Amino acid sequence: MLWHDGRLIDGTTLPFDLTDRGLTLADGVFDTALALAGRVAFADAHVARLVASAEALGFSVPADAARTAMHALAATGDRLAIRTTVTRGIGPRGLAPPPDPRPTLFATAAVSDRRIAFAPLRLWPTAIARNETSPLARLKTLGYGDAILAARDARAAGFDEALFCNTRRHLACAGTGNVFALFGDRLVTPPLGDGVLAGIVRAVVIAELAPACGLACEERSATRAELRRADAVLVTNSLRLVAPVAAIGDTAYATDHPVLMRLIAALRDRVAAECGVPASVVA
Amino acid sequence: MLWHDGRLIDGTTLPFDLTDRGLTLADGVFDTALALAGRVAFADAHVARLVASAEALGFSVPADAARTAMHALAATGDRLAIRTTVTRGIGPRGLAPPPDPRPTLFATAAVSDRRIAFAPLRLWPTAIARNETSPLARLKTLGYGDAILAARDARAAGFDEALFCNTRRHLACAGTGNVFALFGDRLVTPPLGDGVLAGIVRAVVIAELAPACGLACEERSATRAELRRADAVLVTNSLRLVAPVAAIGDTAYATDHPVLMRLIAALRDRVAAECGVPASVVA
Repeated sequence: MLWHDGRLIDGTTLPFDLTDRGLTLADGVFDTALALAGRVAFADAHVARLVASAEALGFSVPADAARTAMHALAATGDRLAIRTTVTRGIGPRGLAPPPDPRPTLFATAAVSDRRIAFAPLRLWPTAIARNETSPLARLKTLGYGDAILAARDARAAGFDEALFCNTRRHLACAGTGNVFALFGDRLVTPPLGDGVLAGIVRAVVIAELAPACGLACEERSATRAELRRADAVLVTNSLRLVAPVAAIGDTAYATDHPVLMRLIAALRDRVAAECGVPASVVA
Repeated sequence: MLWHDGRLIDGTTLPFDLTDRGLTLADGVFDTALALAGRVAFADAHVARLVASAEALGFSVPADAARTAMHALAATGDRLAIRTTVTRGIGPRGLAPPPDPRPTLFATAAVSDRRIAFAPLRLWPTAIARNETSPLARLKTLGYGDAILAARDARAAGFDEALFCNTRRHLACAGTGNVFALFGDRLVTPPLGDGVLAGIVRAVVIAELAPACGLACEERSATRAELRRADAVLVTNSLRLVAPVAAIGDTAYATDHPVLMRLIAALRDRVAAECGVPASVVA
């Protein structure tokens, strides 16, 4: 199912201009949101981030259209991953954007497996650095090549996901999520300047769930060595929500730490309230 | 003009599956070649690089189709930039590629301005690092976001193009070309391991033109400080061919250095021979 130009369309194929810079140069941004029972969790935050990301690249996303697309697709299933993509639109050959870009917006919905919510993950430390010197490391742009390569290596090594450090060897993020480490009653997560996407669930954990669970939350740089001493590690993203990390390479972590369980319960309730469903529907 | 699925098509719009991973994740590679009077310069090298790049990402490009596309488009104009794009094809949500990818191949042609060949360039040193820790830094993938941002900054600062160093502060490349520095009768260019694309003209300079011009050519790391002491600097790519660098930030360089002039003359002759045209047609 596809949303484009104001309407829902069966299938995913459309007339498309192959000089669209999203396709030719990865010149665009996207967002992935969870929808339960017809409602998008944290919809305003998702739309706001999409608009801000495009702004950072220098073009405008019509927020209303993005919101309409997400809501229209949300109504087409019970538990959906909604992906909204905005590119800078078509352009002539070369890197220079057209002076007056006409962005392309489309969105797709796919069934989201309930079992990935809160499921433990094993992370493989990739040798590919997250490039925090680029503003793009903080934006959800279309350029996912490094994450694809690192995920391939992780799976080949028998792990679920890659873990990235940045060029200064500070902890950055998982291939598709933010990372938090727990030390006693403190949560630590890398600041955006370390090459980290401003995750929607990350923000909810920092602003709401950590305080509600009696945890201090610090946005600061951390090293892999420090991470080895963590009491627990977790990955956040909009579909996995909070994933307990069972291992990073050969370092094992408890996935049933009581603080983790409190965070999971709090996020389950929060998402349930967002979507107007019982907590048991979330996971 | 577009080539797709075995034939030339007017315009650039086609039915296209918006779940194509080239569009959703920049999961693909491309090539840009110069065609003069119906013939593609260094066609075999371009096709071989495209095939090898896709191979590095883990999917296959049909070399015959790529060659056919380039040649078919070459015949549609006098002086063309031919862009051949290959993506991994459609895939389900998420990073994991489909087990049996069916790559998407298409190519476009655009008139290439004769005046850019051998034209001087002024380079702006960007603070965005070329991420040599990623294998993708050596491949012409669809992920051109950093180059777009850096080019925007370069133009805003009154320059033509960005110059990248890598995360170790070694010289890497221009946003759309390889860099060589001249010291006496030695040319120095960064090795691929420094995060550099295996440029087609770069290879011709190293293997043929430098020796023919009596120059030693070293592939080795260089710093920006070293670059400041160069007698001349040049950028190579398939459309600009050899571009004398007039400035890098506030460091000026001679664009009429006799060695540069010899290299330009040698490449003009070489491209003319490739395309079966008089040297005066090249530039």
